[in-house]
Amino acid sequence: MSANTEFESQLQKRVEYAEQVIEKYLPAAEGNQKTVIEAMNYSVLAGGKRLRPVLLRESFELFHGTPEELAQPFMAAMEMIHTYSLVHDDLPAMDNDEYRRGRKTTHAVYGAGMATLAGDGLLNYAFETALKASAFAGEHQDRLIAALKVLGEKAGIYGMVGGQCADIEAEKRSDLTQEELLFIHENKTAAMIESSLMIGAILAGAAEADVQKMQRIGHNIGVAFQIQDDILDVTGNQEELGKPIGSDEKNGKTTYVTLFGLEKSKQDVAALSEEAVRLTQQLGEEDAFLLQLIRWLISREK
Amino acid sequence: MSANTEFESQLQKRVEYAEQVIEKYLPAAEGNQKTVIEAMNYSVLAGGKRLRPVLLRESFELFHGTPEELAQPFMAAMEMIHTYSLVHDDLPAMDNDEYRRGRKTTHAVYGAGMATLAGDGLLNYAFETALKASAFAGEHQDRLIAALKVLGEKAGIYGMVGGQCADIEAEKRSDLTQEELLFIHENKTAAMIESSLMIGAILAGAAEADVQKMQRIGHNIGVAFQIQDDILDVTGNQEELGKPIGSDEKNGKTTYVTLFGLEKSKQDVAALSEEAVRLTQQLGEEDAFLLQLIRWLISREK
Repeated sequence: MSANTEFESQLQKRVEYAEQVIEKYLPAAEGNQKTVIEAMNYSVLAGGKRLRPVLLRESFELFHGTPEELAQPFMAAMEMIHTYSLVHDDLPAMDNDEYRRGRKTTHAVYGAGMATLAGDGLLNYAFETALKASAFAGEHQDRLIAALKVLGEKAGIYGMVGGQCADIEAEKRSDLTQEELLFIHENKTAAMIESSLMIGAILAGAAEADVQKMQRIGHNIGVAFQIQDDILDVTGNQEELGKPIGSDEKNGKTTYVTLFGLEKSKQDVAALSEEAVRLTQQLGEEDAFLLQLIRWLISREK
Repeated sequence: MSANTEFESQLQKRVEYAEQVIEKYLPAAEGNQKTVIEAMNYSVLAGGKRLRPVLLRESFELFHGTPEELAQPFMAAMEMIHTYSLVHDDLPAMDNDEYRRGRKTTHAVYGAGMATLAGDGLLNYAFETALKASAFAGEHQDRLIAALKVLGEKAGIYGMVGGQCADIEAEKRSDLTQEELLFIHENKTAAMIESSLMIGAILAGAAEADVQKMQRIGHNIGVAFQIQDDILDVTGNQEELGKPIGSDEKNGKTTYVTLFGLEKSKQDVAALSEEAVRLTQQLGEEDAFLLQLIRWLISREK
């Protein structure tokens, strides 16, 4: 088996584990509120990379966290928050998307009102689910509280919701500054990657300095991932990407590439990636799966 | 001063205190995410009875909770959750209301996309805010976690969101059963009254049996309040109520009165109210403000 397929099979195993954990924590669709629960589960089970729960667990393992069950509720919570953001993003009042990953979006199936409620239900249930970790935190309830604080901060107005707000407003303008574009990338995407890595470390009892390193690693992965997205829109293979090339330019969208040029964009991806790799090497074994995952995420061609 | 105006001035004082607490915990509208924060604050500062934070604090006081600052973050969180539910309820995809309390609704001012996001931001920020209580919980972090669990459960699919789902579905039907109508009243309205009273007690360190009593009191207040609403739609004074009489019947809406008749409805309000009063008397002084508040809430004519 080549190094690459060995990595891919490792990744596949971890994604499958994350999916088992997510399913375990989904609420049963029953009672007078059956429909909203069905809509929530439909949204979460629509698939996806399960990147955030996988990262959370890798970080938990890197710092030798136990027991397994302590990280699980947060893995599920992370995916619920990510999913609710997509459900609300797809609403007619937002991006008005009928399809996502080849499947009808939640509002296309359940209506916009029920989809709004399903998103609310998911966000709320994420906190309910994360709190279930308290049964496995033993004497370390302080770690649970610290993890909940990071979960809240990075998902809200000082994280994902804040980035989403800036993104909505950016769509109306063509004179976006570098600072504003970076704010969007850092908050809309990177914040939840940061919190996944930080929460895994916090629950495992990592030192504050190491939690900060995980935040930096998450920041770099998230921002590099977004810049790579902008690069691929210019240089990518339409077939591999599954979407038309040059759509950003056609839509007059300010991207990292329109602001900085292709060369500088590639350099920045490389620099962010290298720093993330270096920080990860400082923290664990040389051949940690997390290291390969970072490289894979940033160097992707689709 | 008559007993009634004495009560009203006491209530006014408590509402003002609740508003100070709420304002203290609202986020500053600044940064690239300024608009969503402005929309959140606009929504929360639109006024209202501040019933949930007032009840939370009364319960905290009844069980001699200290310090004051321990209850405050939860008072603010409760109002944020109540407000987000109104903001999303008013959306074009839900009730499509342009005005609430004589003021433009959030989506009428900021657009449906930003209002959706402001609701999300408020729900998320409610948990962030409640977590700030950990700084004042000292060695009682277990109380904080127990309070967060109740906050989550009563706001989500096994509480308010669940009731909201059943209510949306009920609007399409004219054959609502008693069980279904009661489910809506118990979850859409009563759940958050229950959690306010329960959280006050939990944070103060009340015994589990007393927390259960507070839940029952909250249940009775919430359900009686809703039945009274249905009664007033038939018997009320249009001028005092500020809305047309008989609108439920005209809209073919199933209400407690259409299901059980006026006489039985009045009897049930009285029974629920009496039980709530009796339970409250068991818990504290005979002349507790909470006792008068319960009577006032249930016997209202508008």
